[in-house]
Amino acid sequence: MLPVLSAGAAPEWIVSAWYGADDAPTLASCRGRVTALETFQMLCPGCISHGLPQAQRLRAAFAPDDLVVLGLHTVFEHHAVMGPDALEAFLHEYRLGFPVGVDAPGEGPLPRTMELYGLRGTPSLLLFDREGRLRAHHFGAADDLRVGAEVGELLAT
Amino acid sequence: MLPVLSAGAAPEWIVSAWYGADDAPTLASCRGRVTALETFQMLCPGCISHGLPQAQRLRAAFAPDDLVVLGLHTVFEHHAVMGPDALEAFLHEYRLGFPVGVDAPGEGPLPRTMELYGLRGTPSLLLFDREGRLRAHHFGAADDLRVGAEVGELLAT
Amino acid sequence: MLPVLSAGAAPEWIVSAWYGADDAPTLASCRGRVTALETFQMLCPGCISHGLPQAQRLRAAFAPDDLVVLGLHTVFEHHAVMGPDALEAFLHEYRLGFPVGVDAPGEGPLPRTMELYGLRGTPSLLLFDREGRLRAHHFGAADDLRVGAEVGELLAT
Amino acid sequence: MLPVLSAGAAPEWIVSAWYGADDAPTLASCRGRVTALETFQMLCPGCISHGLPQAQRLRAAFAPDDLVVLGLHTVFEHHAVMGPDALEAFLHEYRLGFPVGVDAPGEGPLPRTMELYGLRGTPSLLLFDREGRLRAHHFGAADDLRVGAEVGELLAT
Repeated sequence: MLPVLSAGAAPEWIVSAWYGADDAPTLASCRGRVTALETFQMLCPGCISHGLPQAQRLRAAFAPDDLVVLGLHTVFEHHAVMGPDALEAFLHEYRLGFPVGVDAPGEGPLPRTMELYGLRGTPSLLLFDREGRLRAHHFGAADDLRVGAEVGELLAT
Repeated sequence: MLPVLSAGAAPEWIVSAWYGADDAPTLASCRGRVTALETFQMLCPGCISHGLPQAQRLRAAFAPDDLVVLGLHTVFEHHAVMGPDALEAFLHEYRLGFPVGVDAPGEGPLPRTMELYGLRGTPSLLLFDREGRLRAHHFGAADDLRVGAEVGELLAT
Repeated sequence: MLPVLSAGAAPEWIVSAWYGADDAPTLASCRGRVTALETFQMLCPGCISHGLPQAQRLRAAFAPDDLVVLGLHTVFEHHAVMGPDALEAFLHEYRLGFPVGVDAPGEGPLPRTMELYGLRGTPSLLLFDREGRLRAHHFGAADDLRVGAEVGELLAT
Repeated sequence: MLPVLSAGAAPEWIVSAWYGADDAPTLASCRGRVTALETFQMLCPGCISHGLPQAQRLRAAFAPDDLVVLGLHTVFEHHAVMGPDALEAFLHEYRLGFPVGVDAPGEGPLPRTMELYGLRGTPSLLLFDREGRLRAHHFGAADDLRVGAEVGELLAT
């Protein structure tokens, strides 16, 4: 039902640092589980009001053995004030409850994973199946029932 | 993943009248599609604040060919003031956007479908798979991500 | 600042029954306090979602010695199913926390207080000053900050 | 009714820069109008979810000639990442709709206006009357009806 949006397994995320993770998560290390990757910027209003709360609800609604929930800080604007030190303060205040990685800076304004996946902005929510294939890609506010249905399908198949 | 809560197809709903339906829906006529049955009472606060809005969101989030959404007015208290004429006024005001049936009165206070399915109160949300088997049964406020995941699983399998 | 909308004290409400009141409140008996009268119908969606919750917030936000909060069931449609027995069931379920009166039936569809005050529909919120004069009249959803400001002005002057 | 919390006019705010203001507002320049000063930090979750939206609702609910609405960035933690450049990016993204000042840095972690007024944290909402006297001081989430009532009283008296 959900199309496969990547040719085989999707490309590995390119992350310069992780916060709140014992081991650096990779798409490969998430194999066997469904994975939700919430990409955001700490100064993006829609990320604060919709994207990150939805990721927290995803964390609460599914067992960690079924669904991996991760954040990815994909900074493509205001770089000077959304660096790792700013993100650390943000994470200290917001206590998201899931690991957050820093999308590695690219040569231009776009960070590398953002460019690799063709993200249009933030928030963007990516869903990967148990084989690491990209199966859903939402830009902007996504409906809980629709996202839930996608997770449910990926868990069931 | 979702257990089968009925032995084979679930029992037919026992409905004395339908509103907003061209033909009286039956569990049999819904075969081939997933079905959400939102049971409610028009004077139940949790039905107004949670159950019926969730049913409306379900109607909006999925295609009618995939998911059937139906309401069932399961009156088990205040019978004198929640009869068909009161329900008609309620439906005129609330414009739910999906058909609503009246659970047939029983010999005691419980209406017949409510008793047949062992509903504990309202709102209760029942999900049936494409073969008419009962697969989920929520009493009270149910989380959109969880309900979405259940619908997604039933649509996918 | 708030205009006086009535010539002197406003006309007495015409109420056929009160629920949740020790003594039948009258505009005269409320003198000395500011009074909020929330007019509603039990089957009016905007009353359930906006009007009555705002009245409950008013009850919670101000001391009873400062602000009287009352409901008035002004039935102008679906009369057959919004009679006193239906209202009693409604009040039993919703537990509003303030007294509710029944606007006395008129000769036509409009109840008498509704006609006397020229209410345009439900919900309508009326605010009376300490002298019983009508000082504000809202039809539909009213902003908490604006309503709060009106109450604050009436309490202060 | 509202007590006077300052001896005469409250002390002037000590602001190192203003954003979104033609002339730097001062308590003195606001004389004749009621003033709401929303103190916040850009990385404070309660400021984003409650304080600043309430300030925006205040801006929308009252006429600028009646009520002045101002923000004050009172940074007392994570100083390195909430400097003026970070605040500028924040304001660019959030488009608050009212002027925002930067509370001048103090000798310790607390900025000078925060210390002068004894603020306990963020968000804190201060209300000043037409004579510049401090009349209300809320720390944390404040109820719209209560804040509205305070504004209404100050406008009326």
